[in-house]
Amino acid sequence: MPEFNNVSVVKKANVYFGGNVSSRTIRFADGSVKTLGFMLPGEYIFNTADKELMEIIDGELDVLLPGTDAWLSVSGGQAFDVPANAKFTVNIKTATDYCCSFIK
Amino acid sequence: MPEFNNVSVVKKANVYFGGNVSSRTIRFADGSVKTLGFMLPGEYIFNTADKELMEIIDGELDVLLPGTDAWLSVSGGQAFDVPANAKFTVNIKTATDYCCSFIK
Repeated sequence: MPEFNNVSVVKKANVYFGGNVSSRTIRFADGSVKTLGFMLPGEYIFNTADKELMEIIDGELDVLLPGTDAWLSVSGGQAFDVPANAKFTVNIKTATDYCCSFIK
Repeated sequence: MPEFNNVSVVKKANVYFGGNVSSRTIRFADGSVKTLGFMLPGEYIFNTADKELMEIIDGELDVLLPGTDAWLSVSGGQAFDVPANAKFTVNIKTATDYCCSFIK
């Protein structure tokens, strides 16, 4: 099973939307950061600071990316990018496991 | 903020009870394993293989430990042990962030 090696993990969870979305922060030796997160069904709006690469490990969702008015269906094994300083909306259909990479 | 350093993290989440409980597996250089997990409100029964130390990072729950018939209230900053090869029940009152250490 794929693992991240030689990393630091922040013990405390990041908690959003009453716990329906939670994630763990992973720090890499090169200074880069990812979060491994889990989202339960529902619709959630997120704001980005850095550019983000959202890899869907498992689950099914629709995403409304900034500058578009069409929802995109995404499922396990797929990914999407979100620009920095933007807003995106996800509609989670089934419990979704993800990895978010913050791109400086 | 406390971190675990020099560890490996399994990318894929462990998912229980339809996603109401999810966790991430952390492997340490000495071969020991912990999970960092998150539980939404509800009642859940778990079975242990190894002995477990359950540290509650944040949240409020009641736990029914094996061999007892009295629920114990536990909250962030507190911990409890569960024997190996046992069953315990938690009733999660508020979204609960935990660290589970598996004791060989």
